[in-house]
Amino acid sequence: MKNLKTNFLKHSFYKLILLVLLFSASAKAQIQKTEPPFWYAGMKNPELQIMFYGKNISQYETSVSNNVAIKNVEKTENPNYLFVTIDTKDVKASELIFSFKLKNKVAFTQKYSLKERRANSADRKSYDASDLIYLIMPDRFANGNPKNDSNASLAEKGNRALPGGRHGGDIEGIIKNLDYISSLGATTIWSTPLCEDNDKEYSYHTYAQSDVYKIDPRYGTNDDYARLSAEMHKRNMKLVMDYVTNHWGITHWMMKDIPTKSWINQFENYTQTHHRREVIPDTHASKTDQEICIDGWFVPSMPDLNLRNPLVAKYLTQNAIWWIEFANLDGFRVDTYNYSDANAMANWAKAVTAEYPNFNIVGEIWMHNQASLAYWQKDSKIGEIQNYNSNLPSVMDFTLQDQIGSVFNEDTPNWDGGLIKFYNNFAMDYLYPNVNNLLVFAENHDTNRINDVYKYDFAKYKLVMTLMATVRGIPQVYYGSEIGMGGDKSKGGDADIRQDFPGGWAGDKNNAFSSAGRTAEQAKYFDFTSKLFNWRKSNEALHFGKMTHYIPENNTYVYFRYTDSKTVMVVFNNNAKEQVVKTNRFKENIKNYTSGKDVLNGKTFDLSSEITLEPKSALVLELE
Amino acid sequence: MKNLKTNFLKHSFYKLILLVLLFSASAKAQIQKTEPPFWYAGMKNPELQIMFYGKNISQYETSVSNNVAIKNVEKTENPNYLFVTIDTKDVKASELIFSFKLKNKVAFTQKYSLKERRANSADRKSYDASDLIYLIMPDRFANGNPKNDSNASLAEKGNRALPGGRHGGDIEGIIKNLDYISSLGATTIWSTPLCEDNDKEYSYHTYAQSDVYKIDPRYGTNDDYARLSAEMHKRNMKLVMDYVTNHWGITHWMMKDIPTKSWINQFENYTQTHHRREVIPDTHASKTDQEICIDGWFVPSMPDLNLRNPLVAKYLTQNAIWWIEFANLDGFRVDTYNYSDANAMANWAKAVTAEYPNFNIVGEIWMHNQASLAYWQKDSKIGEIQNYNSNLPSVMDFTLQDQIGSVFNEDTPNWDGGLIKFYNNFAMDYLYPNVNNLLVFAENHDTNRINDVYKYDFAKYKLVMTLMATVRGIPQVYYGSEIGMGGDKSKGGDADIRQDFPGGWAGDKNNAFSSAGRTAEQAKYFDFTSKLFNWRKSNEALHFGKMTHYIPENNTYVYFRYTDSKTVMVVFNNNAKEQVVKTNRFKENIKNYTSGKDVLNGKTFDLSSEITLEPKSALVLELE
Repeated sequence: MKNLKTNFLKHSFYKLILLVLLFSASAKAQIQKTEPPFWYAGMKNPELQIMFYGKNISQYETSVSNNVAIKNVEKTENPNYLFVTIDTKDVKASELIFSFKLKNKVAFTQKYSLKERRANSADRKSYDASDLIYLIMPDRFANGNPKNDSNASLAEKGNRALPGGRHGGDIEGIIKNLDYISSLGATTIWSTPLCEDNDKEYSYHTYAQSDVYKIDPRYGTNDDYARLSAEMHKRNMKLVMDYVTNHWGITHWMMKDIPTKSWINQFENYTQTHHRREVIPDTHASKTDQEICIDGWFVPSMPDLNLRNPLVAKYLTQNAIWWIEFANLDGFRVDTYNYSDANAMANWAKAVTAEYPNFNIVGEIWMHNQASLAYWQKDSKIGEIQNYNSNLPSVMDFTLQDQIGSVFNEDTPNWDGGLIKFYNNFAMDYLYPNVNNLLVFAENHDTNRINDVYKYDFAKYKLVMTLMATVRGIPQVYYGSEIGMGGDKSKGGDADIRQDFPGGWAGDKNNAFSSAGRTAEQAKYFDFTSKLFNWRKSNEALHFGKMTHYIPENNTYVYFRYTDSKTVMVVFNNNAKEQVVKTNRFKENIKNYTSGKDVLNGKTFDLSSEITLEPKSALVLELE
Repeated sequence: MKNLKTNFLKHSFYKLILLVLLFSASAKAQIQKTEPPFWYAGMKNPELQIMFYGKNISQYETSVSNNVAIKNVEKTENPNYLFVTIDTKDVKASELIFSFKLKNKVAFTQKYSLKERRANSADRKSYDASDLIYLIMPDRFANGNPKNDSNASLAEKGNRALPGGRHGGDIEGIIKNLDYISSLGATTIWSTPLCEDNDKEYSYHTYAQSDVYKIDPRYGTNDDYARLSAEMHKRNMKLVMDYVTNHWGITHWMMKDIPTKSWINQFENYTQTHHRREVIPDTHASKTDQEICIDGWFVPSMPDLNLRNPLVAKYLTQNAIWWIEFANLDGFRVDTYNYSDANAMANWAKAVTAEYPNFNIVGEIWMHNQASLAYWQKDSKIGEIQNYNSNLPSVMDFTLQDQIGSVFNEDTPNWDGGLIKFYNNFAMDYLYPNVNNLLVFAENHDTNRINDVYKYDFAKYKLVMTLMATVRGIPQVYYGSEIGMGGDKSKGGDADIRQDFPGGWAGDKNNAFSSAGRTAEQAKYFDFTSKLFNWRKSNEALHFGKMTHYIPENNTYVYFRYTDSKTVMVVFNNNAKEQVVKTNRFKENIKNYTSGKDVLNGKTFDLSSEITLEPKSALVLELE
């Protein structure tokens, strides 16, 4: 009996050892992904939804150490996912241990870090109208580390010869050129997405992400991204991440083993969005049209995320917050903002800004009238008509951009043409709840380049930049235009407007990053632009000052930006010939000032009777 | 002594007689105008401001009989005006007597009638989306009474040979053709102004009024106008007056002896409005631009009324109400609505609709985006942004009109062209507080005629009318287009779009008022139009039914108008070739209906799979 018992114990002992060994082995195999990979203690919203991914993980019972409460465990029809929501309230930064049990026995465990947040993380400032945003496509800006151009784990290899290929630009390249960007007068960088995109081709645009917790190795590492942020903060600059809520890439790891059918929007047959987002607030819209708008895919290679599924919504909210904390971000730009469920996006923006009340988020709402844009800005009265509040702090001024590309060609305009187009755009500003928080731009990575639009006419370039630097809102410049780069989609497709910045690659003959390396033509563009925006940088009236404008007459346009103590007068002459502008009409704003100093060359203009303007020119005068 | 006394008495007696005689004589001379000339007992607002005009009338003290209280007497710097405000509360219909005293003696008296109102006058119904409005320029419609073509007291004499002259059309002409108008399916007439306009030339348009209490004798008498209204009511039709608040004519009797300088808006030099009414809600607008917009004159011959002067505001409010009561009106159209002070206009509209809560007023707000139009409709959320409520029940759908003139020429449109223009217009309907109360029109007396715009292409005419008959809002047809009349301002100026209706003048060879008199071409237009609008007349789904529309595909556009019990399907094919429309996409609205009956010819269409449409055609189907 004893022997038997001993044998049994012995046998059980070995069995136990075996089991432990087996479980340890399977533990490693079991948890293939934990997302978020770690989190932060002391967030305003204490609920944290952790997604564990591993073979048949849903069969395990979960518990967690440190007396942390599990508020909810959610399973889907796919046994390989487990969504565990814990309550982090009052939980200090610590290493938690999740235990996964089968039949009341711990099968395996998983460490999970709750990290310390930076001091005042929640109160971080963000970008605003005092900034100049510099928009970069990282693959096309500068190749700081040629060793990471290709990566064994990723399909598309570096090939600069392909217009739509990966050219090798990376985070290191941005870091190396921060002083250049800063010298332009830019204070903020918005880089198009940097997370991994494992598409076989065209992955350089990186909007088809395959892992949203990981910087694409061809750009660098997560730590490189955090280092970029730190290097920028050293220079008083701000980093804006391009966030994509609407879709992932078809190569996203989850798409190979989808958590649940409703993780993405699926139709019987492939269905593309019709892009007509007018249907969203439209009272007359058919349900079919509204559904296809939101649930239809952008392109076949980008599965359309279903933010109406609370698991997805929470996943994306946490992912966004994770990046803010991890990389110490200063803001977001959100791609294809109104291609996702409007209420889900409102909740997403609300959750992010609840954690960071000053955090600015600009949404890409690519529409063509002010009411339709204003609808999408936080606290919109127009949104209110349909009981909608987007919670989105900022939208892009697409109607202004629509006009910027044509106005300066209109020398002899009709009733509604020429500078009146700008006037009419700003006349509708009252529709916006926060007009200082509009993004002002002439071009971006999806549009023709302004220099191409205006056939490299430097006078017109100056008019464009002067407008952007002096109107209300946050100006944004697209990399390379400041040295005269062009690009026309109708010629070379997207690649044409996303060419490499000269000097970003070892061996580039022309290096426009350095003053010594610039051609005379590039220097002309750069010097003007940097002078203008560096002047703007320190001029409060341009940031948050009021604006008063006067109805354009004879294709000239005059407006003022001012605070109680400072007034800037801006005068545009859009005629191909000299123009004299009488000052009497502007006495409301000129008040007791007698002269104006040209901010570019210091020349003084007497304001007592008239100002003479060169053909196709603008004057920016600080009143004295 | 006795003789002396007798003599004195005798002398005094004669003196008294003389004085009485003198005063009587002067009384007649004294009061040259009393406005309103009479009033009505039992108005909701009991305050009545009566303007007495006469030589030095301001020196007299005023009292009134029947224990009626005088609430206020206001004088201006012009001694010939006296504004006496009485309280008519609880005063029965009666003849009041105003006494005018000098040094405590009654110098003269003036009778003033407070008349009985019609039963339920305040509760009168008005025009709405169940109506079809027929717009008439009376001078150009029909000359019912050739004897009144000229008038001794008025400068411009009848001369049909002059394109811009007075052609002799009149109220009698409208009355004589009411059955014609009714046979078209029209239920409402909006006639351009009928009050006296004593301009030397171009007085036929009658927007430069010289007496706003008097119908122009060349149109008839005030009683004729009341008779027109009565004749229309007999036929279940409604009369809409074209009211002008912004300006009078330079020949207005008051302009010869202006009550007060601020009665009209005056500048040092003649100043014209710049017409850019975008400045009104614009936060950035300069005060100068706002002032010139509102206070600048429309043309030199039309003094710009200053509605910020409470005397003027009250005068115009009462004048409007007076016409409603006197002529038993069913509604207003207000000219150049947002050329006057916006707050004053809001008060004017509020005062009118306070007296007549159902009374509809459509304002001419000639602007080109939906937000700018919606701003001006009563209870607008967009107005609310600037703390503005116009109190104006209806605005004209000018953005739709902008599109109607081009869409049907766009056979192969680009992304934003063709039928998408209509779709996009209606997609913005949510901006309007009351979309059923928009005036839907293709043309009016200020625009090119639709038949000319479309080069007399009958297929396109049918498309235009089908659209107007079937979308939300109140359709309006411009006289003569229904028989194929054209007109192009660029050719013959305004006169070209305001030609005489054939058959309106004795001796006209062609009489399009009668079916026998119409040419085959005219009959083709008329028969189609009358069939369509007579059908619309009895179809509730078209009046107040909901609308669901589908994004146009292949330049076809499908929408539905429906109530719980009735569904109308409208299909447009804007292609120059036949088009097949699959019905599957519309099942949300087709529901269990299986076929649709063409409302024009009774032909039945099977809805189970597809509908084939002729080139450039529309189908209006009652679902069955």
